[in-house]
Amino acid sequence: MNKKDINKLISRDAFPNSEKIYIKGEMEGVNVAMRQIKLSPTRNSDDTVEENAPLTVYDTSGPYTDPKIDIDLNKGLAKIRQTWIEDRRGETNQSQMYFARKGIITPEMEYVAIRENQGLSAEQLQKGEKLVTPEFVREEVASGRAIIPANINHPESEPMIIGRNFLTKINANIGNSPVDSSIDKEVEKAVWAYRWGADTIMDLSTGENIHQTREWILRNSPVPVGTVPLYQALEKIKGKSEDLSWEIFRETLIEQAEQGVDYFTIHAGLLWRHIRHTIKRTTGIVSRGGAIMAKWCMFHHQESFLYTHFDEICDIMAKYDIAISLGDALRPGSIADANDRAQFAELETLGELCQRAWDKGVQVMIEGPGHVPMHKIKENMELQEKYCNNAPFYTLGPITTDIAPGYDHITSAIGGAMIGWLGTAMLCYVTPKEHLGLPNKDDVKIGVITYKIAAHVSDLAKGVVGAQVRDNAMSKARFEFRWKDQFCIALDPDTAMQFHDETLPDEGSKQS
Amino acid sequence: MNKKDINKLISRDAFPNSEKIYIKGEMEGVNVAMRQIKLSPTRNSDDTVEENAPLTVYDTSGPYTDPKIDIDLNKGLAKIRQTWIEDRRGETNQSQMYFARKGIITPEMEYVAIRENQGLSAEQLQKGEKLVTPEFVREEVASGRAIIPANINHPESEPMIIGRNFLTKINANIGNSPVDSSIDKEVEKAVWAYRWGADTIMDLSTGENIHQTREWILRNSPVPVGTVPLYQALEKIKGKSEDLSWEIFRETLIEQAEQGVDYFTIHAGLLWRHIRHTIKRTTGIVSRGGAIMAKWCMFHHQESFLYTHFDEICDIMAKYDIAISLGDALRPGSIADANDRAQFAELETLGELCQRAWDKGVQVMIEGPGHVPMHKIKENMELQEKYCNNAPFYTLGPITTDIAPGYDHITSAIGGAMIGWLGTAMLCYVTPKEHLGLPNKDDVKIGVITYKIAAHVSDLAKGVVGAQVRDNAMSKARFEFRWKDQFCIALDPDTAMQFHDETLPDEGSKQS
Repeated sequence: MNKKDINKLISRDAFPNSEKIYIKGEMEGVNVAMRQIKLSPTRNSDDTVEENAPLTVYDTSGPYTDPKIDIDLNKGLAKIRQTWIEDRRGETNQSQMYFARKGIITPEMEYVAIRENQGLSAEQLQKGEKLVTPEFVREEVASGRAIIPANINHPESEPMIIGRNFLTKINANIGNSPVDSSIDKEVEKAVWAYRWGADTIMDLSTGENIHQTREWILRNSPVPVGTVPLYQALEKIKGKSEDLSWEIFRETLIEQAEQGVDYFTIHAGLLWRHIRHTIKRTTGIVSRGGAIMAKWCMFHHQESFLYTHFDEICDIMAKYDIAISLGDALRPGSIADANDRAQFAELETLGELCQRAWDKGVQVMIEGPGHVPMHKIKENMELQEKYCNNAPFYTLGPITTDIAPGYDHITSAIGGAMIGWLGTAMLCYVTPKEHLGLPNKDDVKIGVITYKIAAHVSDLAKGVVGAQVRDNAMSKARFEFRWKDQFCIALDPDTAMQFHDETLPDEGSKQS
Repeated sequence: MNKKDINKLISRDAFPNSEKIYIKGEMEGVNVAMRQIKLSPTRNSDDTVEENAPLTVYDTSGPYTDPKIDIDLNKGLAKIRQTWIEDRRGETNQSQMYFARKGIITPEMEYVAIRENQGLSAEQLQKGEKLVTPEFVREEVASGRAIIPANINHPESEPMIIGRNFLTKINANIGNSPVDSSIDKEVEKAVWAYRWGADTIMDLSTGENIHQTREWILRNSPVPVGTVPLYQALEKIKGKSEDLSWEIFRETLIEQAEQGVDYFTIHAGLLWRHIRHTIKRTTGIVSRGGAIMAKWCMFHHQESFLYTHFDEICDIMAKYDIAISLGDALRPGSIADANDRAQFAELETLGELCQRAWDKGVQVMIEGPGHVPMHKIKENMELQEKYCNNAPFYTLGPITTDIAPGYDHITSAIGGAMIGWLGTAMLCYVTPKEHLGLPNKDDVKIGVITYKIAAHVSDLAKGVVGAQVRDNAMSKARFEFRWKDQFCIALDPDTAMQFHDETLPDEGSKQS
């Protein structure tokens, strides 16, 4: 890849009227990046002027939006966690959960505590609200209610936390395919996703150069990176799922662990006996990992090796501090299949595996559906809590109707907002191309912004500390016709400004 | 306006693989238009072939999508209700509610009963489900739980019903403004809105040629048309709200009634004493009608003439069978102001006015917010039910966060879906231009499709008869890789097809 070209592809623009600030922690090297938006003063009707304090917001965009930092994708980002990791080298288990249980507050924990507070001061808190403390983060991680995905070989990442008692997070899927393969395009999409708010990304590449694509992404990713190792394992045996084996899978796990992948989706909860529950389904098994493993089980007449070797998988994860994301291989692919026996039988097995991973000191989250109509969403959350003891839930939408291909970012944002409010910790985005094709750069942005909306409205409804501060700043600016400030506070300043400039706004259109 | 030009502007394309069908009722002249989608057969793995029955769906697009019908916008649509209306001329009250209470099933009632059933056969019903009958429609209209907006001077409209026990409906706002005025553009947008699923439209024109624009729209509208008469009244006195009077307002009401407007938004619930509750708000009074009337009350130190002359208003409405949409002049314009005293004090007054309108045999719906976070939505529905005795609720979204201008169709579809599920009968769309400018044709389509999604997911969750039939047809087509069928069943076939064709789909992208 030509060095000059790839560095030109990525967006390095700062956000309008914004400054990158770093809030220092008490521990060595803890400097938490945030975005501070400068606001213009209020002009009162009596011609007096009142200052508006700058607004500090959560920022996933990494060093890319800091003009003071030189970035060369060929070299990768600065390894901000390197010394923290080295200081802990002696331990057999490297996971944040292991340290949390020992009562140790890691620098990662202090980092996420500061980050979650978004620069809030005590005066901005409403009655009954409390700022997040590093000790609270430690407790949540120790109990399994929250995870900090942080592979020791991904020192470039800015720590973040996934758990029901924190800001709702979102994940963006990227990845090349046999149809459309190019490393630079995927890196470009990844940086674009960080910019607009992806808290983690998953690299779901299935085409050529899987290893190399992931290497470029990891070395340049300020957010945790997840993968589905089964996809690469399958490529190694040229797509013949019956040739899969524990050995090939194990080798792939270690290859990706060494590179620095922060969490693995593993469909270990799909048992041989669950498969028969899918026979009468409208849409069978729609999870790719699920379909692969079901085929393997049926061909070999054996229990899935992901299940039989689960303890060994956990031992690998613990060594690198990779979080396990227990995949829902039997998630419903249609409204008709929502909340059926296949889905919930697997969920119960995921709960059992969650406990086994915790016993090994491995951080866990649980993946959830899929296609679910609104009135069936609550049962998903309740059973997940029951079976999985409040391990973070990580759902794909859910999509609330099947009839709107081209708009599934919207059908699923409705479900995502609802399940986020109920306590789901991370929402996996869905782009307008879902069910139709692969997302391009524009689709990635639309998907990310749509999911920032779903996550934020969840936070407002859950009453997360300080969630409403940004809304209040926007509404004040709106009421005072401070247009520039409205654009800067918006999740997507570019689109807001462009739409505004298309028609000259008059009083009527402003007030409707 | 040049005749040739305007007829060329509007979309007359039929939907792909679809046919316009007409289901005959028992009453004279009842021919209910629907869209029937032909589906291709299923090819089984053993090479056998199974037919898939055609799918019949609700169709708001009117004669425009029937290639057999000649349309000339200069002449207007056929007056399908003319004889029904003439047969009833003798009565002093012309409202559907009046006839319903007398035990009379009108042709309009039979029409909507057939329409709501979407061509479902008894075999397609699930256990416990019942088809809608004309008698059920009559009961719902008589009780005030549902309305059929149908001005006797708008005989071109295809009857439709708004009520919690029917399919959730959506409204699209159009209308020119002083900044961007042209009649043909508004007619073009209106026809575009019908095509994609607008159940009613509101003409909110405020610029030049208000009367003439409305005339073009009404004569060519197969769906009920609503207005805010106050906007035109204000234009008549050149925008000086203090010069408003009952006489000017009354004259405007009658002018619009004569033209055939099917429902009027009237902000009669804003009382002088409510205004003080808005003083400490973050965003004051954001309803345009509310702001105008508050200014009038404060200038004249008088109670609103909309309230003091409410009985006279109702007498006019009854004569023409115009439904009254009681406007929420004090709806919150920000998350900070949601569910405040001002809002709910007005809602209580709306309940009082609702009863007074019912006493006059006038059909009523109640308008609702606005900006409301998810956890405060339920209270809106509960209080509306309590104060307004189950009169249909008609809400704008609600928008669930303030921070995403450019994406408020999404922030509000989340709220709309939730409140629809809770029983709101009609959702007023919000376009991506909300808070930023006036919607163009593309925005109208995005707004309508987004709200069709919100309404449909509400129907799925409420368990409306037959709501899931279209989802099931889509999912079966999806599982069988019948791509063309998927496009045709989709709410927006054009976008689905275009997105699909952008990337060659491979198995990975289809299953993910």
